[in-house]
Amino acid sequence: MVLLEERICRDGIVAPGGVLKVDSFLNHQMDVALFGEIAKEFYRLFREDGINKILTIEASGIGIACITAQAFGCPVIFAKKSKTKNIAGEVYSATVESFTHGNVSTIIVSKRFLTGGDRVLIIDDFLANGSALSGLVSVARQSGAQLAGAGIVIEKAFQPGGERLRAQGLRIESLAKIKSMDGGTIQFC
Amino acid sequence: MVLLEERICRDGIVAPGGVLKVDSFLNHQMDVALFGEIAKEFYRLFREDGINKILTIEASGIGIACITAQAFGCPVIFAKKSKTKNIAGEVYSATVESFTHGNVSTIIVSKRFLTGGDRVLIIDDFLANGSALSGLVSVARQSGAQLAGAGIVIEKAFQPGGERLRAQGLRIESLAKIKSMDGGTIQFC
Repeated sequence: MVLLEERICRDGIVAPGGVLKVDSFLNHQMDVALFGEIAKEFYRLFREDGINKILTIEASGIGIACITAQAFGCPVIFAKKSKTKNIAGEVYSATVESFTHGNVSTIIVSKRFLTGGDRVLIIDDFLANGSALSGLVSVARQSGAQLAGAGIVIEKAFQPGGERLRAQGLRIESLAKIKSMDGGTIQFC
Repeated sequence: MVLLEERICRDGIVAPGGVLKVDSFLNHQMDVALFGEIAKEFYRLFREDGINKILTIEASGIGIACITAQAFGCPVIFAKKSKTKNIAGEVYSATVESFTHGNVSTIIVSKRFLTGGDRVLIIDDFLANGSALSGLVSVARQSGAQLAGAGIVIEKAFQPGGERLRAQGLRIESLAKIKSMDGGTIQFC
């Protein structure tokens, strides 16, 4: 998606440790006009898939998921990072490791909102090591819903998450795929 | 807002301890069509106020804030619950107490995204004791921005936050104001 790649080049900041800061438009300040264009692209890619639920994870996936859901005319469910032990039986849960925050958390989704009759699209802002996406895939699979795939805004293709999950058969559509950030220069695939 | 009150009566669940569960449409599963109607109402209320930034707090405020921001044609900034000590000088910060989770956290907003030239509207899903809203007001005041007011989806008017903050001069527009949930019956103001 050219508009997105241009925006990443213009406003993204490559920080030490392979960190790409896009907090001026994606995950702290949020440019909802850009999100509207991103939503149109996700809709174009998945419009034939009968999507009736969008699944994301708090916090920075929520804005993009909501605006994408407008295009599909369906609700969003966001997985919560559980602060307490989950209540057995009432929720689907999965373990997610955060490399940014250096911790492990449990994500939960109420069983009331995802069932075997649903066709689910996962939406998230970033894909790098793939831990959050793996957790969302696990939640979707536990529910028995059909999983159409995942729409990702920015994939760091030099980290292993995308390759690993595609090898497991997951359809992943990433709107910007970064090949390298060596020397602070962003190169797209 | 009649549509919202009807939805709360139909799908809201009054749980022990004065808890109103609206997780089927507001803060776990999110009905973005309803959010579109909420956004129109916030726009009607604040359209004359020259809003150029919407401020909210993660996680459940983000969806409503993003869809409201489409109506205003402006970006959203969401305050992050800091997991680390904040870096002095780079962020505005405030302390927020969560009665639901029984903990205290620091919220932060980068100084790059709010300045004295901004006209800010705060958006959040709930107002009860007012701790989150007080924190957002503090952040807005630290930035020197003009604060037009706060748009709240559901106010529990039997808890003290709304009265206390209005007494401090804050304009608060709540789309559904709950007077009482005694005996599990929801009564609006």
